[in-house]
Amino acid sequence: MSSNPTPRTRVVREPQRAVYDRDAVNQILDEALFCHVGFVADGQPFVIPMSFGRDGDVLYIHGSTASRMVRNLDQGAPVCITVTLVDGLVLARSVFNHSMNYRSVVILGTATLVDDPAEKLSALRALSEHILPHRWDDSRQPKEKELKATSVLRLPISEFSAKVRVGPPVDDEEDYSFPTWAGVIPLEMNSGTPIRDERCKQDLPAYLNNYSRPRKSQTA
Amino acid sequence: MSSNPTPRTRVVREPQRAVYDRDAVNQILDEALFCHVGFVADGQPFVIPMSFGRDGDVLYIHGSTASRMVRNLDQGAPVCITVTLVDGLVLARSVFNHSMNYRSVVILGTATLVDDPAEKLSALRALSEHILPHRWDDSRQPKEKELKATSVLRLPISEFSAKVRVGPPVDDEEDYSFPTWAGVIPLEMNSGTPIRDERCKQDLPAYLNNYSRPRKSQTA
Repeated sequence: MSSNPTPRTRVVREPQRAVYDRDAVNQILDEALFCHVGFVADGQPFVIPMSFGRDGDVLYIHGSTASRMVRNLDQGAPVCITVTLVDGLVLARSVFNHSMNYRSVVILGTATLVDDPAEKLSALRALSEHILPHRWDDSRQPKEKELKATSVLRLPISEFSAKVRVGPPVDDEEDYSFPTWAGVIPLEMNSGTPIRDERCKQDLPAYLNNYSRPRKSQTA
Repeated sequence: MSSNPTPRTRVVREPQRAVYDRDAVNQILDEALFCHVGFVADGQPFVIPMSFGRDGDVLYIHGSTASRMVRNLDQGAPVCITVTLVDGLVLARSVFNHSMNYRSVVILGTATLVDDPAEKLSALRALSEHILPHRWDDSRQPKEKELKATSVLRLPISEFSAKVRVGPPVDDEEDYSFPTWAGVIPLEMNSGTPIRDERCKQDLPAYLNNYSRPRKSQTA
């Protein structure tokens, strides 16, 4: 299923890297650990890193009810949510053709506050499951006052585009004889050995062994 | 050396995580491989991942002269540049106190087009050195038409703040007895085995062995 880009989401530069397929976009969203949220306050753009969750065609973010972002967005303001996965450094012969392999998604729209308590709870669960499946059920559940201190915003994933670069460097033909190493340095995020809190006596549960993000999309 | 936060950069939430020290901010900037650039077009915020370079108290980004970002910023528009390093998942006993360990920097200001050819060239070199030291000198140098196709924007690092979270989870006292594993899952970006371009016959140079970002700041 693909979405028609709007003039705002049509990829201008390197259009051959554009992806408007919803399944491909969802895979990038699901692999990304966090997003950057852009909003405008008094004409000034702000970009804030945040965790997020996805439920079908809706993306959820959350924050303290007192935060600058929530105060600016809860009246229904335009927002941009971007996720970026960097897969490698692309080393070309020429400075000009150096690049990165990456997968990014840009979603535009209007965020609205989630008022319905059931949707709010399921959105918070989606946020938790996005970061670490199984963790929600293994944690002390939210109290009423904690839910009150947390605002959840919903953004429909309807106006979006993705941009993906894969593969080796592409040089001008006359540069291929230039005597320098060329290729790709792959990059990925890895987890290290879990560090148990000093007041914790529990053994590490299976779902915390070798933590990694779900990798379904093409990164070669 | 520290900077006084403005009302726009003063950290509202979790103020104990705020960092306004310029050296600490520079270390985060230097470790980050890329940034997210926020700008406004027709009232809509856009957030785009980009590489960047730093020269003292100036941050440089670059893009195609034809790109949406450059077209929107080259007249001197407000911009927000954010970098984020995620160091770990922080697993608390309660859902509410889950967090991440991270280091982020938010810089606000007005980007301006670099007109001076010497500054433009040295900015592009800073961008290249930021990603991979030594690579610039080992690559085919830029041609005049390549420089013309590239725009460089400068943003003074003068209005900024950083936010840093380190260490174990912090739970409400009554939750410490809750029977779940608690602690930190460390995360870091690693490089894999370099993939040589099939048309390249050169051996891997020493500066490409075990690529990693410079790590000077506190991440425990």
